[in-house]
Amino acid sequence: MRQRNVRKAIEKVNNHPWVVDSITDDAFPNENPVVLEIGMGKGDFIIGMAKANPDVNYVGLERYQKIIIRALEKLDEELPNLRFICHDAEYLFEIFDVKIESLWLNHSDPWPKKRHAKRRLTHQNFLKIYEQLFEEEANIYLKTDNKDLFAYSLESLSEYGYVFNKVSLDLNNSDIPNVQTEFEKKFISQGETINYFHASKKLIKKPWLFDIII
Amino acid sequence: MRQRNVRKAIEKVNNHPWVVDSITDDAFPNENPVVLEIGMGKGDFIIGMAKANPDVNYVGLERYQKIIIRALEKLDEELPNLRFICHDAEYLFEIFDVKIESLWLNHSDPWPKKRHAKRRLTHQNFLKIYEQLFEEEANIYLKTDNKDLFAYSLESLSEYGYVFNKVSLDLNNSDIPNVQTEFEKKFISQGETINYFHASKKLIKKPWLFDIII
Repeated sequence: MRQRNVRKAIEKVNNHPWVVDSITDDAFPNENPVVLEIGMGKGDFIIGMAKANPDVNYVGLERYQKIIIRALEKLDEELPNLRFICHDAEYLFEIFDVKIESLWLNHSDPWPKKRHAKRRLTHQNFLKIYEQLFEEEANIYLKTDNKDLFAYSLESLSEYGYVFNKVSLDLNNSDIPNVQTEFEKKFISQGETINYFHASKKLIKKPWLFDIII
Repeated sequence: MRQRNVRKAIEKVNNHPWVVDSITDDAFPNENPVVLEIGMGKGDFIIGMAKANPDVNYVGLERYQKIIIRALEKLDEELPNLRFICHDAEYLFEIFDVKIESLWLNHSDPWPKKRHAKRRLTHQNFLKIYEQLFEEEANIYLKTDNKDLFAYSLESLSEYGYVFNKVSLDLNNSDIPNVQTEFEKKFISQGETINYFHASKKLIKKPWLFDIII
């Protein structure tokens, strides 16, 4: 894309009514649960989920504007339950002012080198950030074709107190309902299997004694 | 094997000094930690481990005498830190009178049908039995080529309070030290990958108040 076209495209993203700067109380016109995907890429998954579940609000986070453009191009109908944000996962707390019900991490960058472990989206530093977004229970869904990232994420979430409610090492041959991402379609056509888990963690509530005193 | 030969072989197993009926305090001539393998098969793993770690005592449990015979045939040297038992995992408490440090489940029968889930060695009923064998901390190591059994075991142990300290979806290409079982050698030669985890659980100790009163 030429420089002038890139500028135009970015302008289009910035002015698009579904691309927002933050998710506050009035982001959606209802009280439906909010589901977040970090690293939505070209949006196949989050658009598919928003279409399939109109009673759930979806937020797709993506770091790069030029990728959000691709997602916008794919939107063939108005989806009042879908918003996109161009932002970095590390600074989620700056832009997220509502509680979410669940978080999806689909085919995140595996950052295979040990010295880059802190950049993996399931590193404990990120788990700490996500925890602020949940209310009573944290729910994280993960899909990846990368065996090392999957193993690392199982260790990291387990160590952080998450329980694995559902695990599959071959998602597309399991009975788990699934909306495929663009990556997944490519991998499956190459004969790869997709690893999946749903993990949850009960968040500590203040003790009942505290309720009585206050 | 003819019937007469089978009888002879069983006699040989029963009279073998390393095949014992139970594991009591005097099973080993020292206080070294005890490691148990349930379903040792032809014994490649437990014999390899016993050779590699002379300061650890190993117990191999196997339900079928005709398989223990194969393991005895493989023993090419005296291993004072190794015992075999012919017994069913369900009735472990009948024969185990010492505490173990860790438990290995290698390539256990996956029992793929849902109605057979209770027979899987990582079903919660079995986890309950194993817990009686451990003292302060339970340690379970699992290896399997079977994706469904692996996923099921992650769910089952997680739900039961275990934390996954180490996970790999390709054990033989990881940095985890490993003694291959006879199954593994076959699977790897067919290009299969081996799934592995080490899970641990802190067991509840009596509260400190109890210590003071007593």
